[in-house]
Amino acid sequence: MKKLINTVDNALTDSLRGFGAAHSDIVSVNWEPKFVQRAGGTRKGKVALISGGGSGHEPLHAGFVGKGMLDAACPGEVFTSSTPDQMLAAAEAVGADAGVLFIVKNYSGDVMNFEMAAEMYDGAQDTVLTNDDVAVEDSLYTQGRRGVAGTVIVEKIVGAVAEAGADLATCKALGDRVNAATGTMGVALTSCTVPAAGKPTFELGEDEMEMGVGIHGEPGRRRVKLAEADALAAEMIEAICKEGGPDTGDPVILLVNGMGGTPLMELYLMYDAARKLCEDRGLTIARSLVGDYCTSLDMAGCSITLTRADDEMLGLWDAPVHTAALRWDV
Amino acid sequence: MKKLINTVDNALTDSLRGFGAAHSDIVSVNWEPKFVQRAGGTRKGKVALISGGGSGHEPLHAGFVGKGMLDAACPGEVFTSSTPDQMLAAAEAVGADAGVLFIVKNYSGDVMNFEMAAEMYDGAQDTVLTNDDVAVEDSLYTQGRRGVAGTVIVEKIVGAVAEAGADLATCKALGDRVNAATGTMGVALTSCTVPAAGKPTFELGEDEMEMGVGIHGEPGRRRVKLAEADALAAEMIEAICKEGGPDTGDPVILLVNGMGGTPLMELYLMYDAARKLCEDRGLTIARSLVGDYCTSLDMAGCSITLTRADDEMLGLWDAPVHTAALRWDV
Repeated sequence: MKKLINTVDNALTDSLRGFGAAHSDIVSVNWEPKFVQRAGGTRKGKVALISGGGSGHEPLHAGFVGKGMLDAACPGEVFTSSTPDQMLAAAEAVGADAGVLFIVKNYSGDVMNFEMAAEMYDGAQDTVLTNDDVAVEDSLYTQGRRGVAGTVIVEKIVGAVAEAGADLATCKALGDRVNAATGTMGVALTSCTVPAAGKPTFELGEDEMEMGVGIHGEPGRRRVKLAEADALAAEMIEAICKEGGPDTGDPVILLVNGMGGTPLMELYLMYDAARKLCEDRGLTIARSLVGDYCTSLDMAGCSITLTRADDEMLGLWDAPVHTAALRWDV
Repeated sequence: MKKLINTVDNALTDSLRGFGAAHSDIVSVNWEPKFVQRAGGTRKGKVALISGGGSGHEPLHAGFVGKGMLDAACPGEVFTSSTPDQMLAAAEAVGADAGVLFIVKNYSGDVMNFEMAAEMYDGAQDTVLTNDDVAVEDSLYTQGRRGVAGTVIVEKIVGAVAEAGADLATCKALGDRVNAATGTMGVALTSCTVPAAGKPTFELGEDEMEMGVGIHGEPGRRRVKLAEADALAAEMIEAICKEGGPDTGDPVILLVNGMGGTPLMELYLMYDAARKLCEDRGLTIARSLVGDYCTSLDMAGCSITLTRADDEMLGLWDAPVHTAALRWDV
């Protein structure tokens, strides 16, 4: 295993310390228990958005803490849910009278731990569960569909409405609506390697790809032979647009997300393939995002996400955001 | 070879088309010959900054075209210099009475081609040659030191002064000054694979790293056995701080740059290692940047760059920038 780390045991702490130091203008790190919050704190009267989950998906979620997006993020060990005490401490630090909205990717461990934290939290709270991965129903760590890169879109749009002063019920309803309007499908060219395991999570032949892969290397729909970008994108877009997905005339947000080990040159190429396919279907690409936003350690591959976005969502997408990983001011 | 492409021959064109479409608010792409320029054009009376070189280092350089940074970028084929006709066409498109400043990484092919373009260009022009790589003197494609990730810092700072209305001589002098104040050292954990070659550029054992690697996979200083992040960072910082590098009391810009296949979690960990070493030397980390800015296709590894920055440079670093890959507004 080749990784830029000191020891497996300290990798998360060392990385988080670097993250906090590099972005001390945006975030501060709490260490016991671990969570990341806005450097300036959360203003009174604002609904506090908290996410979290296993590490190894950077910049998700800590990279999205800041004005216009999350108020706090709770990083677990690599590919391991954060714990209820982290979530509770984060809620107590950033939550107040307006309440807390937990944004949780649908994995059994995360769901259970966030539920425990919500029960323990002595204040108004609600949860948005993201499950945008259209690849498979039920998976290695999930009942139902998995929450993957579409979570970034949920966090951005709900982050904007919370920043604008929306109440908890509005944030929760919008989050559910964005999640329901969002579909993602991924493909892996290589496995990832979890530091504590020291070897690739799964085996993939030199001429194979995993279509529909999960962000922890969970099995997808099928092994495919090496294929051209256009063909891969076609299968992914087809899967997303099936069954209630975006259709002719719909404006969409198109996210092409790198899994961590994919050159940007290839991501833009995949974006181009996805864009053409969307246009062929009569979709209007209203907004685009290309880059590494929800990764799987060193996995090579990418995911495509489409959100069928109404005017409200697009307006909130455009609202200013100032985080380590996503930044646009007005 | 596993890559998200359609054909080797079309990879650059397909990717560039995606880049142009994803960022049509920032850039426009000219196809015959290929260059990227600002969507809004370059304003009259402003010195035009043009860079370019082989592709495979994305987001360098096209990702830095936009307000506050470059006016145009000329992408060559992968790891192959762009051609004089591209550079000349870009200069004719964006250059005007205030003149053109070419920013060129020091590789023999790039230097020769930019020199030819400069000779053919019928207007005021000058060139800043970047050679920040402290690893080796002379290399596979270079006489003298190589230009690597420090080029991003040169482009940002000179971009800001040009945007503020500085004349050609001022831009040129500042560019040379930033370059001279900048040192970079890289380390590779894996080789990269050039699409046209179809196999890794160099062989690296399972327990080996290449210390001082170039951004095309050129040999560095030595093969090292797998080492801890702290030890790698120490060798890199030592190399940069030797011989006229930053010293006690100096404010520095610290860039930890991913080579394309490196998880963000590891980059922040390397940032933390570099930060501690800088502080131990009495350097003041005035600004930080962590991410993939000057890559080598799918290479795993990173580089560390330090720029000894005076107040003018820091002010220009902070000035607004609005490009695909670097964006901060005020």
